Amino acid sequence: MTAIGMIGLGRMGANMARRLARAGTRVHGHDAAAGARDALADEPGVRVHDSLASLVAALRAEAGPAVVWLMLPAGEITETALRELRALLAPGELIVEGGNANYLDSQRRAREAANAGLGYVDCGVSGGIWGLDGGYCLSLGGEPAAVERVVPFARQLAPTPQSGWLHCGPSGAGHFVKMVHNGIEYGMMQALAEGFALLEGRTDLNLPLADIAQLWRHGSVVRSWLLDLTADALAEPGALQALQPHVADSGEGRWTVDEAVRQGTPAPVIAAALMSRFDSQGRADTGNRLLALMRQAFGGHAVRRADEA
Amino acid sequence: MTAIGMIGLGRMGANMARRLARAGTRVHGHDAAAGARDALADEPGVRVHDSLASLVAALRAEAGPAVVWLMLPAGEITETALRELRALLAPGELIVEGGNANYLDSQRRAREAANAGLGYVDCGVSGGIWGLDGGYCLSLGGEPAAVERVVPFARQLAPTPQSGWLHCGPSGAGHFVKMVHNGIEYGMMQALAEGFALLEGRTDLNLPLADIAQLWRHGSVVRSWLLDLTADALAEPGALQALQPHVADSGEGRWTVDEAVRQGTPAPVIAAALMSRFDSQGRADTGNRLLALMRQAFGGHAVRRADEA
Repeated sequence: MTAIGMIGLGRMGANMARRLARAGTRVHGHDAAAGARDALADEPGVRVHDSLASLVAALRAEAGPAVVWLMLPAGEITETALRELRALLAPGELIVEGGNANYLDSQRRAREAANAGLGYVDCGVSGGIWGLDGGYCLSLGGEPAAVERVVPFARQLAPTPQSGWLHCGPSGAGHFVKMVHNGIEYGMMQALAEGFALLEGRTDLNLPLADIAQLWRHGSVVRSWLLDLTADALAEPGALQALQPHVADSGEGRWTVDEAVRQGTPAPVIAAALMSRFDSQGRADTGNRLLALMRQAFGGHAVRRADEA
Repeated sequence: MTAIGMIGLGRMGANMARRLARAGTRVHGHDAAAGARDALADEPGVRVHDSLASLVAALRAEAGPAVVWLMLPAGEITETALRELRALLAPGELIVEGGNANYLDSQRRAREAANAGLGYVDCGVSGGIWGLDGGYCLSLGGEPAAVERVVPFARQLAPTPQSGWLHCGPSGAGHFVKMVHNGIEYGMMQALAEGFALLEGRTDLNLPLADIAQLWRHGSVVRSWLLDLTADALAEPGALQALQPHVADSGEGRWTVDEAVRQGTPAPVIAAALMSRFDSQGRADTGNRLLALMRQAFGGHAVRRADEA
């Protein structure tokens, strides 16, 4: 029987554990949060552990050399788990890092794992909360021998065994491809958002945004999964009005623009989409206040004072 | 029997005539070019005419008050055809303008048609060369009574009778919605293009662009019809290298940015995508030469002279 360890049972990891278990893989899960462990405790084919040591021991007893898949938040949490795993795992065992890591970190971590005699595969995972039923899109990076050991699990996680997973290249390639994917996502989302804002802005035409989103899903050039989600969201009356116009950014967009700068490859749309998110976070306020001051200074133009209604 | 006139039998109009004829509508076609007429002459259900007068007379004899659909290049060619049609058509007859018109022109033309007692529907048509088999996405603008007469044809042209066509609003709304659609298309295309350029730019990872495009089609957030086309194009070896890096723009992108300016609605990504096309057309060369001159002037930086290799 194939078995795998899943470390991090949040929104992504829990559903990936479920999808693997439903496909016949025995999953040993761990999460630092008891609530996350409890949520999976009754899932057929999944056994949860309250420590990494317990998970590794059980996994090894059941299926020989351990393969553990990390689905943790990027940064220090992942770094700490990797440090613990390097101490716990034996040479020949293997780590798959499926979080949203910066590919430069993945390249370093692959070297650190190799120094400990461990296999290391970096894996970009796309699919969000829809992946449990629809499958995940997986971009894998690492040595061919290491990736080979991950393929049976990738085939279960992907939409079909033949599609939706790819060995993209050496260590770092999996997260690099995922990073660029998310950069593209920023640009596509922003293009859709700007278009719907222009539709709404023409108030004299009183355009039915939700119906137009539906319309474009059929036969148009912009049909896409993001448009499908947009159509679903707009179908709910008041859905837009219920939100503040604030868009978070989670790192991948910044890394993509960093990479464009590193390469000297122009990426004006991805960069503009990222800057637009910063703007939505209020980070343009200082600049805009300064612009208002300058207009007042050289042209006597009116300004809005902070204490005005 | 329902019948319609199709004026303009180019790439779009010819296939729309075919799709209507296959669905059981009798189509009377006209194109100024004999070659375009000949290409449709043997199509079952289509009869071609060498003049608008002949088309209108035959249509009227067969189906009563004429409904004629224009699929002509935007601008003067459409304007001229509309002038002729206003003279030829009788009150109560109806024009559908399906070209890529500026919605402000459509609003004026609807008034001109109304002055002649004619119905007028502006219709944005998306679907390109794939529409013949897959169906077209149609956004309709005009008076409810006029649009009602066009719906039977829209149901045949759309992917299904129930989906892919919409009465969006008053005159101009159809072309306005199509314009915004194309603006979104500019942004989505540019986001994809920038992403694949970043993948290719990381030469040390030697990433398989065609395989990655295929990968993302399955379960990823960026899956879309444009990605499907990209994957098809990249699957052909040397397809990219065979082209000059020159991207035309056909008007809709400019109109969308004009509209953003008119409204004061920010559309940074759509604008950046448009500017990037201008750049690809060599329209940034003067500015770039000036920048090189300035760098030389203030910093003594090297420049590349026009006669250098």
